[in-house]
Amino acid sequence: MKIAIDAMGGDHAPQSTVEGALAAAKEWSDIEIVLVGNEAVLAPMLKDAPANLRIHHASEVIDADDEPVKAVRRKKDASMVVAGRLVREGEAAAMISAGNTGALMTTGLLVVGRLEGIERPALAPMIPTVDERGVLALDLGANMDAKPEHLAQYALMGSIYREKVHGISKPRVGLLNVGTEAMKGNELTKAAFPLLESLPINFVGNVEARDILTGACDVLVCDGFAGNILLKSLEGTAGTMFSILKREFTKSWKNKLAAAVLMPSLRSMKKTLDYKEHGGAPLLGLSGLVVKGHGSSDGGAIKNAVRQARTALQSRLTESIAREISGK
Amino acid sequence: MKIAIDAMGGDHAPQSTVEGALAAAKEWSDIEIVLVGNEAVLAPMLKDAPANLRIHHASEVIDADDEPVKAVRRKKDASMVVAGRLVREGEAAAMISAGNTGALMTTGLLVVGRLEGIERPALAPMIPTVDERGVLALDLGANMDAKPEHLAQYALMGSIYREKVHGISKPRVGLLNVGTEAMKGNELTKAAFPLLESLPINFVGNVEARDILTGACDVLVCDGFAGNILLKSLEGTAGTMFSILKREFTKSWKNKLAAAVLMPSLRSMKKTLDYKEHGGAPLLGLSGLVVKGHGSSDGGAIKNAVRQARTALQSRLTESIAREISGK
Repeated sequence: MKIAIDAMGGDHAPQSTVEGALAAAKEWSDIEIVLVGNEAVLAPMLKDAPANLRIHHASEVIDADDEPVKAVRRKKDASMVVAGRLVREGEAAAMISAGNTGALMTTGLLVVGRLEGIERPALAPMIPTVDERGVLALDLGANMDAKPEHLAQYALMGSIYREKVHGISKPRVGLLNVGTEAMKGNELTKAAFPLLESLPINFVGNVEARDILTGACDVLVCDGFAGNILLKSLEGTAGTMFSILKREFTKSWKNKLAAAVLMPSLRSMKKTLDYKEHGGAPLLGLSGLVVKGHGSSDGGAIKNAVRQARTALQSRLTESIAREISGK
Repeated sequence: MKIAIDAMGGDHAPQSTVEGALAAAKEWSDIEIVLVGNEAVLAPMLKDAPANLRIHHASEVIDADDEPVKAVRRKKDASMVVAGRLVREGEAAAMISAGNTGALMTTGLLVVGRLEGIERPALAPMIPTVDERGVLALDLGANMDAKPEHLAQYALMGSIYREKVHGISKPRVGLLNVGTEAMKGNELTKAAFPLLESLPINFVGNVEARDILTGACDVLVCDGFAGNILLKSLEGTAGTMFSILKREFTKSWKNKLAAAVLMPSLRSMKKTLDYKEHGGAPLLGLSGLVVKGHGSSDGGAIKNAVRQARTALQSRLTESIAREISGK
């Protein structure tokens, strides 16, 4: 199993990608890691690399503020684009990048290519939940608008992912909606509901935004716009509450002393609710596996993304999705 | 100024509505309150009522679990419907109800009637913000789907409301979106953006869900579906965090003692983030003023809704909206 890593993508690259690649190559001898990036930069960092780790030179880099489509079209020798090409050409089975999200989605679409039958690939990050199972939410930003059939494909792909990669039997698939009754919703969700009911998945019906964090489902299906509102609202509310707590807890000496006692609890809560802690997000519906790491990924996060890709490859995730979609 | 109150609507009615009506009638001698409901129930509770408070009999009641449209059509003598009829017939200038939200929206649409030129009335509650200005968000659930022109009307109505009722000069109007750049969004928000730019309002552009609580705008424009996801996500995240804090803070004697010191801070944060504390929500775009009180309203909340209606009437809110809409 060859896994390509965009060595130049992410806030802490290439330090983070090299560290992660080294750790992963050492731990799993059944994979081969291809670090894609500038050889002159990478080679000195990889003097003691194990045999299953090698560099594939790419001269350009896509930056965080590059315009995605333009960058992918013009920078043909960018590390991210080259990694995508390795996947398309079968030189690698999966690619990982912590770089520009829009550019990675464009690379997925234009370079790696869609699976036959899939109209819209979906970005599927994990949203943390209190019970620590998390929920795989899709689509989170690859496509702002969706048709009912797209939501049905998201549901199917998400369910297969949770089963194959996370080992959850009969994952509970929910439809993000404004009420739990079947007839609630906007035109999109009302039309999607019967489609989801007809799929060979464990569809648990509509799920309200307020029940996500308490773990109402394992897979949450939504269009990219609604998903963004949900995730950013969650992030904003948690962030705001932590700021208020911080301000209140440092207001007086009495408060500071009391807060010190409670600090471990607060830290653990913060960690639970931090979606950045919850691994890479697969871009599902492509002809090869693409995993998006968070921009702030460190070496540990890159290693985790490799673990995730390895599990997905072992479980033959892409083949399963292709079979289910074509079998419809 | 006559203000009709649906005496039978709300979890604590008629105790809450009678208390609120009495307090309001005593405080403001320039208004006349019409309590609409079962006279046999209400009369004994109003023995010492001031002269500017009277009962208007209505024999039926719409319950919280009644199907909205059916209930409004069939229960022609329901207190909510009768209050709506008083507004339509000019017998009252405003109505307040803490009853069934769907039924109140139906009463607004079918009984009170839309303003000419308004296609979709919008429900506009306040979402709390950390700076305590709050943000008026619309539409929050009156219509799940919206067209760009509807969002433009929401923007105009919300801006007028904040100026007239809350005395905010040039209220900052934001469009709920997935990014702050002008070209971000789904088809709806991308088409709405130039419409909002062309209005005589202080349009501050797109606002992301994560910046709502910190007070990025005074009026937030969104379709009912996205608004619901935003509000429920905010509510769910805050609720979940308070549950975690409660569990952690009662885990040991040490934690309990420390938490006791911080309790006033936690209570004040809870109050700040509780949207139920933030008054009634106007249903904008109708030919008369309709204010929705929260289902759990007590006497104080009903009195506040009367204050809100009184200010709106004094400022000639409905006439201003009618003028701006027809002048377009």
